[in-house]
Amino acid sequence: MKPLEGIRVLDVTRIVSGPVCCWLLASLGAEVIRIDAPGGDPTWRTQPLVGPQGAHRGDWGPQDIGISALRRGRGKRSTVLDLKSEAGLGIFRELVVESDVLVENFVPGATHKLGIDYERMQALNPKLVYCSITGYGDAGPYRDRPSMDLVVQAMSGLMAKTGFPDGPPTKVGATVGDQVPALFGALGVLAALQQRERDGLGQHVDIAMLDSLVALLWDEPLDDYEERGIPERIGNGDPRGAPLGVFETRDGQMAMVMTSEAQWQALVGLMERPELLARYPDGRSRFEDRDAVNEIVEAWCAQQGTDELVERCLAIGIPVGPVQSAWSARTDPHLEQRGTLERLRHRDADAASAYLAPVLPVRLSRNETRLSPAEPLGSSTEAVLREVLGCDDARIEALRERGAFGEV
Amino acid sequence: MKPLEGIRVLDVTRIVSGPVCCWLLASLGAEVIRIDAPGGDPTWRTQPLVGPQGAHRGDWGPQDIGISALRRGRGKRSTVLDLKSEAGLGIFRELVVESDVLVENFVPGATHKLGIDYERMQALNPKLVYCSITGYGDAGPYRDRPSMDLVVQAMSGLMAKTGFPDGPPTKVGATVGDQVPALFGALGVLAALQQRERDGLGQHVDIAMLDSLVALLWDEPLDDYEERGIPERIGNGDPRGAPLGVFETRDGQMAMVMTSEAQWQALVGLMERPELLARYPDGRSRFEDRDAVNEIVEAWCAQQGTDELVERCLAIGIPVGPVQSAWSARTDPHLEQRGTLERLRHRDADAASAYLAPVLPVRLSRNETRLSPAEPLGSSTEAVLREVLGCDDARIEALRERGAFGEV
Repeated sequence: MKPLEGIRVLDVTRIVSGPVCCWLLASLGAEVIRIDAPGGDPTWRTQPLVGPQGAHRGDWGPQDIGISALRRGRGKRSTVLDLKSEAGLGIFRELVVESDVLVENFVPGATHKLGIDYERMQALNPKLVYCSITGYGDAGPYRDRPSMDLVVQAMSGLMAKTGFPDGPPTKVGATVGDQVPALFGALGVLAALQQRERDGLGQHVDIAMLDSLVALLWDEPLDDYEERGIPERIGNGDPRGAPLGVFETRDGQMAMVMTSEAQWQALVGLMERPELLARYPDGRSRFEDRDAVNEIVEAWCAQQGTDELVERCLAIGIPVGPVQSAWSARTDPHLEQRGTLERLRHRDADAASAYLAPVLPVRLSRNETRLSPAEPLGSSTEAVLREVLGCDDARIEALRERGAFGEV
Repeated sequence: MKPLEGIRVLDVTRIVSGPVCCWLLASLGAEVIRIDAPGGDPTWRTQPLVGPQGAHRGDWGPQDIGISALRRGRGKRSTVLDLKSEAGLGIFRELVVESDVLVENFVPGATHKLGIDYERMQALNPKLVYCSITGYGDAGPYRDRPSMDLVVQAMSGLMAKTGFPDGPPTKVGATVGDQVPALFGALGVLAALQQRERDGLGQHVDIAMLDSLVALLWDEPLDDYEERGIPERIGNGDPRGAPLGVFETRDGQMAMVMTSEAQWQALVGLMERPELLARYPDGRSRFEDRDAVNEIVEAWCAQQGTDELVERCLAIGIPVGPVQSAWSARTDPHLEQRGTLERLRHRDADAASAYLAPVLPVRLSRNETRLSPAEPLGSSTEAVLREVLGCDDARIEALRERGAFGEV
């Protein structure tokens, strides 16, 4: 049995943060039932689409899945319920009674309007773990603001801290404002489940995107940097040591971090510059003249090809690596051997598409965390109602007529 | 009882990723016993130091704690064992038998050399959950390479994807290469504990820093971007819509994301530019002329102060926020009210220092996740041996004489 086998999660989320959080839970073995409004969230129709006949950029058909939905929907059952209809909300409430976890990432206030807020769901099922991922969390003056990755990157200080001292604040090239909260959300859900094993009670897990990025940033002593007058943006270097940074090579760039005196001594040997040991005998002397030290190392790097340089530095124990694009990293032999990325499959297609997705980057020695392909929108609506709630044909038909699955 | 109460974690880690992972576990209620080598890892002595008399930049004394150690050591008991001594390793093995989780982030091979690798520890205690956080993970051609945050940012493609199209690859201004793996590690530990509740068996949780960043990056369809010829680095905008990006205001910058047609209509009204609705009636028309659309919005933003502009946009439901520095964000009224940052305390000081640290950004409605202050290095070595292993004075003295706590 997988870690979360037997745990039923209702994934009532949209776009990035919530769907990623529930994908993490699915990867760990939870039964995740995704509940979309009729038509699905925008990711279902965002091109390119993958259908039984392969990938295409044509019109959307009911078997097609947008690649983001295909990626984040792995391992989930797809249902469609119109929570704005009385019948849809009613059947949703019955599902809540039979579930362990609910994850939502609506804009604040929307759950109250829909009638699926924490207080009401807890009253239905006191064992329920209810996780909310919002821009600003459940309390505080900005509580009711809508937010997005870029906005929390801006407000947290992450943009202001990314980039070069003489350049502008810079957005991080991954959706950390969504994905880091997704991770904290999954962690909170597991913690709440652990606590529930003791006393049978659920609770509210309140994740703010802004809190999450502020926590990332403040693992560094930013107040100390401020006291010392270190520029807010430090580019690709680090004011705390040398040689340290990204150096141009003959054909690219290489990142280098120096962590010990033994490494410096070995590097000086490799560079055939023994006189540098006398000029810079220790970390403090290099730190005090760090621009010059970095220039010396860069001049040496510039004469060599990246691959050879990386090998030579690794051979003497210095942590280095090439700067490479995400696109070229996908064929890095290490990542290929680890299977860090997998090709996305449509359930009904003969072969996997060319599109890639990450597998869970948590390798558990006793578990396979790869998942079945995502289902087309609404594939399991009836099956879930039958299996989880014991609905029969007549009840499903009655629900349909009352608009539980969308307009009739 | 807190979620992880009763779970004992041995924190045999250094610097960032491992200590942060164990801080997350401590925040959730685990008993975390930090095991340092004599002298502690470098963070104990990295300035500024905080001691019973407050913060200072003088010489290190045994009661002083570097602020990074003070931050990441919250809620942990501090012990010192010399694992390179036979006596130290012996007593460590006894602790492993009495523990639930071990977290390590040594460079690959070091745990084998020390004799604390997964296979040996599992043989001692089959219930043990053993989490390794390394640069490249437990398998693959780069397995034995040392690594660091900057290096995995470079190799994963995150640097290459951060920055402006006409500028260089850019380091992310937070240590995501350490902290995201820390989060995946904590998630894996909780999942493994959940599985252990079923069958009593532990397992190996293998976290690679490189895998973790690749997973972050590939939540976006990078292969689709490649097919469409979208530049790898897109600066602060987003090629998928408009208006979208960071706009100059009269006195700063504001991030704006447009997510619906209703928002566009409201913005056009606010800008008093009704003719734009005819020119750009839908998302596709704005997308096709996105540079022009962004310029129109930016020209309007440039005439207004950030605070006023943010209020006006929020009033019509558009997700916006000011670009602010991490340093100024610390006094943001929302973060202050939520208590997202707390002042670091030395256990023996009369008052908290001015230095700040994030609290756990997972708010659990049934739990207080704030922790007691970090302890000075080695404060609990004897107490832990007495409480966990039942050592008496004579045994502790004998261990000391045999060098278990460092050179005698």
